[in-house]
Amino acid sequence: MRRQIFTADHEEFRKLAREFVAKEVVPNYGDWEKAGRLPREIFEQLGSLGLLGMAIPEEYGGAGLADYRYNVVLQEEAARALVTLGTVRTQLDVVLPYFLAYADEDQRQRWFPGLAAGKLLTAVAMTEPGTGSDLAGIRTTAVRDGGTYILNGAKTFITGGLLADLVIVVARTSSDPDDRRAGLTLLVVEDGMPGFTRGRVLDKMGIKVQDTVELAFDDVRVPVPNRLGEEGAAFGYLGHNLPQERMTVAVGSVAQARAALETTVAYVKEREVFGQTVASFQNTKFELAAVAAEIEAAQTMLDRAVLDLVDGELSGADAAKVKLFCTEMQARAVDRCLQLFGGYGYMAEYPIARLYADARITRIYAGTSEVMKVIIAKSLGL
Amino acid sequence: MRRQIFTADHEEFRKLAREFVAKEVVPNYGDWEKAGRLPREIFEQLGSLGLLGMAIPEEYGGAGLADYRYNVVLQEEAARALVTLGTVRTQLDVVLPYFLAYADEDQRQRWFPGLAAGKLLTAVAMTEPGTGSDLAGIRTTAVRDGGTYILNGAKTFITGGLLADLVIVVARTSSDPDDRRAGLTLLVVEDGMPGFTRGRVLDKMGIKVQDTVELAFDDVRVPVPNRLGEEGAAFGYLGHNLPQERMTVAVGSVAQARAALETTVAYVKEREVFGQTVASFQNTKFELAAVAAEIEAAQTMLDRAVLDLVDGELSGADAAKVKLFCTEMQARAVDRCLQLFGGYGYMAEYPIARLYADARITRIYAGTSEVMKVIIAKSLGL
Amino acid sequence: MRRQIFTADHEEFRKLAREFVAKEVVPNYGDWEKAGRLPREIFEQLGSLGLLGMAIPEEYGGAGLADYRYNVVLQEEAARALVTLGTVRTQLDVVLPYFLAYADEDQRQRWFPGLAAGKLLTAVAMTEPGTGSDLAGIRTTAVRDGGTYILNGAKTFITGGLLADLVIVVARTSSDPDDRRAGLTLLVVEDGMPGFTRGRVLDKMGIKVQDTVELAFDDVRVPVPNRLGEEGAAFGYLGHNLPQERMTVAVGSVAQARAALETTVAYVKEREVFGQTVASFQNTKFELAAVAAEIEAAQTMLDRAVLDLVDGELSGADAAKVKLFCTEMQARAVDRCLQLFGGYGYMAEYPIARLYADARITRIYAGTSEVMKVIIAKSLGL
Amino acid sequence: MRRQIFTADHEEFRKLAREFVAKEVVPNYGDWEKAGRLPREIFEQLGSLGLLGMAIPEEYGGAGLADYRYNVVLQEEAARALVTLGTVRTQLDVVLPYFLAYADEDQRQRWFPGLAAGKLLTAVAMTEPGTGSDLAGIRTTAVRDGGTYILNGAKTFITGGLLADLVIVVARTSSDPDDRRAGLTLLVVEDGMPGFTRGRVLDKMGIKVQDTVELAFDDVRVPVPNRLGEEGAAFGYLGHNLPQERMTVAVGSVAQARAALETTVAYVKEREVFGQTVASFQNTKFELAAVAAEIEAAQTMLDRAVLDLVDGELSGADAAKVKLFCTEMQARAVDRCLQLFGGYGYMAEYPIARLYADARITRIYAGTSEVMKVIIAKSLGL
Repeated sequence: MRRQIFTADHEEFRKLAREFVAKEVVPNYGDWEKAGRLPREIFEQLGSLGLLGMAIPEEYGGAGLADYRYNVVLQEEAARALVTLGTVRTQLDVVLPYFLAYADEDQRQRWFPGLAAGKLLTAVAMTEPGTGSDLAGIRTTAVRDGGTYILNGAKTFITGGLLADLVIVVARTSSDPDDRRAGLTLLVVEDGMPGFTRGRVLDKMGIKVQDTVELAFDDVRVPVPNRLGEEGAAFGYLGHNLPQERMTVAVGSVAQARAALETTVAYVKEREVFGQTVASFQNTKFELAAVAAEIEAAQTMLDRAVLDLVDGELSGADAAKVKLFCTEMQARAVDRCLQLFGGYGYMAEYPIARLYADARITRIYAGTSEVMKVIIAKSLGL
Repeated sequence: MRRQIFTADHEEFRKLAREFVAKEVVPNYGDWEKAGRLPREIFEQLGSLGLLGMAIPEEYGGAGLADYRYNVVLQEEAARALVTLGTVRTQLDVVLPYFLAYADEDQRQRWFPGLAAGKLLTAVAMTEPGTGSDLAGIRTTAVRDGGTYILNGAKTFITGGLLADLVIVVARTSSDPDDRRAGLTLLVVEDGMPGFTRGRVLDKMGIKVQDTVELAFDDVRVPVPNRLGEEGAAFGYLGHNLPQERMTVAVGSVAQARAALETTVAYVKEREVFGQTVASFQNTKFELAAVAAEIEAAQTMLDRAVLDLVDGELSGADAAKVKLFCTEMQARAVDRCLQLFGGYGYMAEYPIARLYADARITRIYAGTSEVMKVIIAKSLGL
Repeated sequence: MRRQIFTADHEEFRKLAREFVAKEVVPNYGDWEKAGRLPREIFEQLGSLGLLGMAIPEEYGGAGLADYRYNVVLQEEAARALVTLGTVRTQLDVVLPYFLAYADEDQRQRWFPGLAAGKLLTAVAMTEPGTGSDLAGIRTTAVRDGGTYILNGAKTFITGGLLADLVIVVARTSSDPDDRRAGLTLLVVEDGMPGFTRGRVLDKMGIKVQDTVELAFDDVRVPVPNRLGEEGAAFGYLGHNLPQERMTVAVGSVAQARAALETTVAYVKEREVFGQTVASFQNTKFELAAVAAEIEAAQTMLDRAVLDLVDGELSGADAAKVKLFCTEMQARAVDRCLQLFGGYGYMAEYPIARLYADARITRIYAGTSEVMKVIIAKSLGL
Repeated sequence: MRRQIFTADHEEFRKLAREFVAKEVVPNYGDWEKAGRLPREIFEQLGSLGLLGMAIPEEYGGAGLADYRYNVVLQEEAARALVTLGTVRTQLDVVLPYFLAYADEDQRQRWFPGLAAGKLLTAVAMTEPGTGSDLAGIRTTAVRDGGTYILNGAKTFITGGLLADLVIVVARTSSDPDDRRAGLTLLVVEDGMPGFTRGRVLDKMGIKVQDTVELAFDDVRVPVPNRLGEEGAAFGYLGHNLPQERMTVAVGSVAQARAALETTVAYVKEREVFGQTVASFQNTKFELAAVAAEIEAAQTMLDRAVLDLVDGELSGADAAKVKLFCTEMQARAVDRCLQLFGGYGYMAEYPIARLYADARITRIYAGTSEVMKVIIAKSLGL
């Protein structure tokens, strides 16, 4: 069906993104997967093309176009080429919004030009060993000592943590036994600060170009001017960005499901078995038709939600519905597509195998399907 | 999420529809189910309120507002009240489009005022015993004899056939062994024409307020001025209207799934078991959250398709995707909802039981899910 | 695969059952469905053939063969002929075990000959309006008054209650706020006892040959010699019989799923669409193959459980697994089969429509799928 | 439920297997996964314990106990410890049966002692680039030239091909355009034969301890005494062993699903989130209960089939049903289990992640689910 969410500007941007992906990402993607991370250069290249600073105000080196649809286009173009942009996505969709929303003038001047140029890489450190999605259970502490906070604790599952120059750390600055959500604060830890160390790089089933690491903070002295926003206000900040963070997972899920469908359609038309193309079997047609219908449903739902997000009208419950549906759809779709490849679908050299392994995380991160259901149920008055 | 497909005029119409349903349909629905049909009076009442003639030009007694969204509103309001409008829906969504598109001036004058007023009831007779969805296999014949066609054959599964004053019959006026789709013609058979008889009223699992009958034509002489459109052109006509016919099933599926969700949410909040409300169980919350997410996906897909249809931009493949997804979704949703009623869900006095029995037909009529997949697969180049 | 649970005696019994079903049940089944109940005569016929008294000791007119496999054979043979034995099944599988286990010598002499002969029809009355599967919430009371209990309360969803000569009523004879399960007692109410009335016959979606009624007890004086087992021991008795009661639902589910498969295989081979048999489509083959594999899994699971039950080795958790799996399988299987009938599958005259409507109750009665999961989860230590 | 397929001898063997797995496999499994293969030593260790020669006649160094249940025990004990035996399984379940069935006396003397001792490693080479499961499409040729066959062709997806000392190659010795199944012959190629080279080691999504390689044959001269069985009879030989080969996949699927359930039950009891154990959520309980019920169904089905196989009574269609159901069940079960681990489920260090990646192949190899459906449908007369 018609998609009516993009303007000519977005389509212009799409061309740029497509070219970049084809030229810089696709040829190197296998190497990055083996390395388990993106190279720093890719950020700089993206930065110099203006792709990282779309939402950053012009006075700090950006384009001043805070429009989530550019992020959508970027993800779509990567998926279309059967790759992802790994931690670039995290930087743009998950971390940057915190800087944009809460950085004061001094911080903007210090960091925004580097963010726009791809010279400052970032991460956000919420999850701790054992706490999972439960922010209220955070045990990392930051104790005020004059002009600094003394930060102690450990974080895990930190996407992009390996290369990050700036890490937004969620720490507890005070404790209220009656309100575990109070007293959380965002502190920006910089690469090189004494006591800040990176631990193990975690070995994941998929999303291999994204590094995922453990971080440790041992008496790290974080200057107060590195505090993002108000002390004790982090829980609200984090909650505020969650709808977009979840949307971004959904955007990837739909784009990758679509890519899976397209690569599979192409494959089954070529591949012969028992003397005929795989495409000629009714089972093949029916499987892919069912997948196509589901993708269309997800796409329209997502596009509707993108417009609502852009207009500031997307509720947490709606974002939860979108993430739940789109990621569950992705799982079903990619599984059905892979099956049509037969043994080749299990070989890492076929992108469908990567799409399958990558897909398994989307029902989990940025809030599991179960957490989404909790949120939706509340909105139903249950 | 926001629905942005209706205007103030549609909402005005919605109020009218809602009142009518509450006052005239809901109190009598049980009786109609037992009778296995709607009463003629309901058509006349709808007609006098202007609800039947929205799309009919003003000069023939209608409102001249050919906008499918009014049909959507009507179905939604019925579903909201846990009923349907039975054969009214068939008349408006399936039969009327043929009259609007193909009736000549004489036919318009003869029939449109009665259609707008609810005094002429209609049906379309395509399916024959043994042919199912395969129009090309039609064996009813119409042989030209001077100013009449002599019509012979049998039709089955005819919705609304019991009361129809006008029946659009698909008949074969010529045979081309190389093109089984050629040679089909639409003839309007009127109640009382000699040789036209109604056969058995079929006993269905659900949709009890819709009569479904067999019709027989034994040397029925149909005057040539009762031919709708060109001789031999029926296959194209039927194909042309299929997207809307399929949309109308999807509209009902989504509206009824939503009604199922709402009645279930209300029920589980009230009903106690093992000393607590059913709503308080996590399983209940999660089931209904999953259902709500699916309904939202279907609704956005459907709304997108409604706009495309209104703009004349909905392809057959898109209509097929919408019907496939929305009806499969309805089946899953209603089944999950019913389960939460326990034994009460199996009792006819609970609307969920009717919603369940009614739901089983939507994956079948107006083209089965399998036919939808064939259409979608073709659009994928398979 | 091989089934190795039946002996030559069972197969002999099977022949008898098959003949009876073909001769007495099949020709009349439509009438019984319309009547909403079995006729009394069918019990007497079954009784005179010895089919009702298999498990009743010989001295009371039975065959003295307490072997659940005869019950399995009876259900299988009915399903094979696309019918059920309605409340006969309830009598044999659900009610009779209480009499066999807890009747004292006097009760045996009074009732067993009538039960074996099909002259005494029975029901068990547990569920009350609003309590569902929660036995501990029973509010019907029986107050001892000399040689009688004065019984007051209301029951609903009582299968076979319309014709029952003997109704085993679960009533509360004492209350312990700390143990809601204590104080429940079984009393046998006889037809004609003053104050015992039958209320509405409930209109159900399916299982039409089984009457399901409401019963009311208004100061019914039940003689103490009509108490079944010990006072206050009913909760344990009911729990003890639940595995068999659940097995019996599973037996029906598997047998009816198999019948659905068989009637569908026959149908798709005959029925033509688009110029070829439905069977010739790969989708048809694959759907039915998947159904056949699931039925085979369910059958082997069930057969294993039948042997365990016969040997007194079937745990409550195992019975729960069997009921959960077999009834969920039945739902999937019958739905897929019906779809292959197209519009005919929705017509009451095709047995698949009845199989579909009947199937919806099996995930609910004798403990819902949710209750089964609670039981299984406990057995996993969760 | 009770499993009644093992004797005391099997249980004795189980102890031995369990000890071996715990002592030799578990501590080294991570290294083997990284290496992408088993070490040769593990075969020798298994051989010296007698675990490889159970089915080999005593006169050649085996135990003379050709009983498939020993293979079942071995797979079960590996799965129980959250590992697999990789290519050992292929050797025992897939390759050895060909040697046992078709080796002549000379071949038995040459090879059986080495097979029993774990000194001769094996593989079977059927699949060719582009042919998939379609044996009839084999293009590798073997042309008789005096006392040798000259072998030319390429094979792919060869499990265990990297270390194999003996490779059973399926080659075409004659062509019959009317019967593509005729003219296939088994030839045993030995390590070191000129012209025999091993190509790429394929990088797979999972089953990392199994090497999967490409093999090339360039004018390899295979002596006639290395032909296994009759010339031109291979198609029948391969078909004959397929039921066992499929069973062996099913055995692994069920054993691994069970292992997934057990490790998940243990995990959810330990792991806390939002201040309570994951096990305490109803969703957790219900998910695992549903998984447990499916595993029980699969296990009983499988056990029944194992007995049928041992008795020589297992049909190809039954083996297909078992493989289809058990592998599809495994996919559902492992996916649901993994979800309950949250982010940890995606980390390679948690066995559930490996179980998930490993599981994706079972619906594909030894005949895809689609091929199973074709076989089952034929057995239904479709």
